[in-house]
Amino acid sequence: MKLLFIMYDQLRFDYLSCAGHPTIETPNMDRLAAMGVRFTRAYAPSTICGSSRMSFYTGRYTSSHGAHRNNYPLRAGEQTLGDHLRSINYDCYLVGKTHMIMDQAGMARMGIERDSVIGARMAQTGFDVVIRDDGLWPQGVDGVYNQTYSPYNHYLQSKGYDSPNPWHDYANSAVDRDGNILSGWLMTYADRPANIANEDSETPWLTTQFLDWLDEQKGNNHWLCHLSYIKPHWPYIVPAPYHDMYKANDILPANRDVTEQIDPHPVYGGFQQDLIGRTFSDQATREKAIPAYMGLIKQCDDELGRILDHLEATGQIQDTLIALTSDHGDYLGDHWMGEKDLFHDCSVKIPLILFDPRPEADHTRGTTCDALVEGIDLAATFIDATGNPIPDHVIEGRSLLPWIHGQAPDQWRDYAISEYDFAPTEIARNLDLAPRDARCVMVVTKDWKMVHFHGNLPPMLFDLNSDPNELNDLGQNPSHQNIRQQMYTHLQDWGLRMAQRTALSEQDINRMSGQPGRKGVLRGLYDGSEVDPEWIKPIQGKAKIFRPS
Amino acid sequence: MKLLFIMYDQLRFDYLSCAGHPTIETPNMDRLAAMGVRFTRAYAPSTICGSSRMSFYTGRYTSSHGAHRNNYPLRAGEQTLGDHLRSINYDCYLVGKTHMIMDQAGMARMGIERDSVIGARMAQTGFDVVIRDDGLWPQGVDGVYNQTYSPYNHYLQSKGYDSPNPWHDYANSAVDRDGNILSGWLMTYADRPANIANEDSETPWLTTQFLDWLDEQKGNNHWLCHLSYIKPHWPYIVPAPYHDMYKANDILPANRDVTEQIDPHPVYGGFQQDLIGRTFSDQATREKAIPAYMGLIKQCDDELGRILDHLEATGQIQDTLIALTSDHGDYLGDHWMGEKDLFHDCSVKIPLILFDPRPEADHTRGTTCDALVEGIDLAATFIDATGNPIPDHVIEGRSLLPWIHGQAPDQWRDYAISEYDFAPTEIARNLDLAPRDARCVMVVTKDWKMVHFHGNLPPMLFDLNSDPNELNDLGQNPSHQNIRQQMYTHLQDWGLRMAQRTALSEQDINRMSGQPGRKGVLRGLYDGSEVDPEWIKPIQGKAKIFRPS
Repeated sequence: MKLLFIMYDQLRFDYLSCAGHPTIETPNMDRLAAMGVRFTRAYAPSTICGSSRMSFYTGRYTSSHGAHRNNYPLRAGEQTLGDHLRSINYDCYLVGKTHMIMDQAGMARMGIERDSVIGARMAQTGFDVVIRDDGLWPQGVDGVYNQTYSPYNHYLQSKGYDSPNPWHDYANSAVDRDGNILSGWLMTYADRPANIANEDSETPWLTTQFLDWLDEQKGNNHWLCHLSYIKPHWPYIVPAPYHDMYKANDILPANRDVTEQIDPHPVYGGFQQDLIGRTFSDQATREKAIPAYMGLIKQCDDELGRILDHLEATGQIQDTLIALTSDHGDYLGDHWMGEKDLFHDCSVKIPLILFDPRPEADHTRGTTCDALVEGIDLAATFIDATGNPIPDHVIEGRSLLPWIHGQAPDQWRDYAISEYDFAPTEIARNLDLAPRDARCVMVVTKDWKMVHFHGNLPPMLFDLNSDPNELNDLGQNPSHQNIRQQMYTHLQDWGLRMAQRTALSEQDINRMSGQPGRKGVLRGLYDGSEVDPEWIKPIQGKAKIFRPS
Repeated sequence: MKLLFIMYDQLRFDYLSCAGHPTIETPNMDRLAAMGVRFTRAYAPSTICGSSRMSFYTGRYTSSHGAHRNNYPLRAGEQTLGDHLRSINYDCYLVGKTHMIMDQAGMARMGIERDSVIGARMAQTGFDVVIRDDGLWPQGVDGVYNQTYSPYNHYLQSKGYDSPNPWHDYANSAVDRDGNILSGWLMTYADRPANIANEDSETPWLTTQFLDWLDEQKGNNHWLCHLSYIKPHWPYIVPAPYHDMYKANDILPANRDVTEQIDPHPVYGGFQQDLIGRTFSDQATREKAIPAYMGLIKQCDDELGRILDHLEATGQIQDTLIALTSDHGDYLGDHWMGEKDLFHDCSVKIPLILFDPRPEADHTRGTTCDALVEGIDLAATFIDATGNPIPDHVIEGRSLLPWIHGQAPDQWRDYAISEYDFAPTEIARNLDLAPRDARCVMVVTKDWKMVHFHGNLPPMLFDLNSDPNELNDLGQNPSHQNIRQQMYTHLQDWGLRMAQRTALSEQDINRMSGQPGRKGVLRGLYDGSEVDPEWIKPIQGKAKIFRPS
């Protein structure tokens, strides 16, 4: 079985036509959904790229692996999907983005060389790198954001895109008649075409890189490949013909209410009031950015079509399990916010489609599943798909295969978790929160969603039945004290979970039972008559007399 | 400043004369208490050797480092006292016991060689080993408990104690007139002298090893030495003259009540009913074992006198900080139990004496402190004593120096935690608990102690004011629902603590604030007028026209 793990970046769960979006058309995502199962209540492990991805790649919650936010290193020693897969003779490849920051201090402390095989994999979240390009190469007043090598910029330069940083100057900018760069960072230009040929833009380029790599894998059927796109992540700009496929009248009204701006939760209020929130609260921004965002998704969908066509043409569709998802969503002006960060559905819910070519999955094809599932479940799912046991003392997620094989697990989770760390933000500074206190965690059940904030801040609470649009925060409503108590009980159970005994499995412990006694640790004996005489023989014998009684 | 970290094993907090024991005499522990501060409410991180020690050596809770129990490996990558001290140019030495089990799989995964300097330290909880002897060398029907080399057995053999295992046959056994070994495992022999010269028994031998090492340290004032005794841990047998210093009439009545045996908590009932509980519930066992236990403590005290005399004679007492403690206590028949395991005071409370030679500590000498302190506080205390900042993103304990310098910290913890994992026990099997569910955690405040059990078991609760002997379990008493709720709120806060972001400090994060924007991640701009024009310059320029607008 081959494992194809496709991830988009910042793709909302509800911007697929099969998810009910009325104006966007994603026939290839719909096609994959028709081949497999679409999960309608899938939650990102975290609502920011880096920490969400570290959870996808370890199968663990962000507070378990410690990389809570972008540019927080994944500590050396955390076991990754690559570690697990290689231990069962599967290769684990990367084509695209991970947002991984290596733990240089930890590697130095343990004497792990960056350029050793082990060190290189550790520095790449366990992947063997076909292409690593995180897709963000901006330059600002303090220099460049990412010091590493960009294969994409190298490619563009080789194609004649003449600039030290064609990622910005061509792929993510438009141009006026005089050749002046109109940067995609400025959303007023989002309705213009990126100044690049479509085939050279990021999504088609990465797809070609993947297909070229795939054609070289002849005969090797034991691999996972993480095809990880940067799009439809900002900058919100897309090349022709996608730049004018959608217009202002194709966008949905913002899901927001003026009452959300009245005495909001302090952290939520902070996000409303920062520049991003203010800009996306402006309809002019939405009318420029959202059509570009939809064009970027349409481009992703066309490229997915190339992949599915190729897999079908080569027959590989019959032995390739495909997971399609995103690391988190995008507010796009809903709830008076932009970006992601908090836990309204548009931010924390993710698209998740799972296709298993095997007959066991035949009777669920084209169906949806509304179980509470989490991004960390994919690591367990991939290992399960290989037929090997899941190391559940390390991986906290659970396999989704039972769902697509039509066997609802006997005991599935009754709440899902997502976490967010906003320590390095102005919002934390304005609230005078120490880094360790600038964290929040969402717990969601079938009916309720609560967000707990550290730092002695109140929670947020939404009634998902009576308020599916999450417009009415009941976090401090006296009549919901019991609900909050129930949600805090879930949070308490989760907080006390066993997450760090990663060097010893449940099976290892079962094998330990009773060993000390059989190895001579004879506790609780008064005269030895309490146990089998065999146990006493090893402690009998003769000795020289040093201290006669 | 030199750091001397003295640990005994299974020494009860209340078996020091300075702690009020009416019949035992510990003049040298009392002497150290008169020189420093004795903490009267110090709690072990766990009520079993290995996990408690891994917490002392990492400054972290057992559920943070994952080595919950004896013979659970400390996962490769966990930072130890040795890692922290060496990073500030302090050496970190071991003389005695650690009960460390190395994470061989983790080291192999990271390519760390056991015989490299890094590997050797990782395999020894970060210590450089002067002497490593865990003090338990039994042999049973399935062979030996500990396969590693015993320096102590080697020493005894060199002194003519003729046996493949003189640890058992001489140091921990008596002998009859015919030379038959009377094993110390059988407590009926606990009133006899161990068949060994006192100077060759474990506590004096280890003391001599330490003093010999100390004399070689001339000129090196930047070290921590962990002098770690196995005693007064069982087997309960001690050489002359200590074997008859205490008699049955010197022991205290067992702290227990028949009502404790009526419908006890399932786990507590399991420990009452197992062999150890039954044996120690028998007064005959107590009258044999406890005088020997007291003799072992008396021996420890005399050896402490040798150390203090030597430090004073050499003047080193003036620049040596001394911490004296134990890894946990011993039930000795109290509450119808033997051994440790659960969280009654006799098991979870530990002696803790801290001596700081510096003038800042002068005005607290000879006093006691009743603050809630934990074993994990010592790691922070040692680093603080060197004048270096405590890495509080890794070490969860807090420095005790403010207490002994007479400055009560502004915000001290209002609850203390201890944890226990009983997964490989018959008690867990009898209750049909999966390994991950056979765990419990104690939360204690100034007035209350609650024990939470995983696996849907009820809690235990004690009112420390009205029931200081902890004889009345209120864990299911309807009238204490509010108290339990308060205690669970503490447990919830603790469970959600930040414990794994160990690759990034609070200071590192504060330095990250605002960086992405200054490095060109220009989010939330509509036309650029929102920010300093300087920020826009890097995204302006000229480009070749590929797709004219």
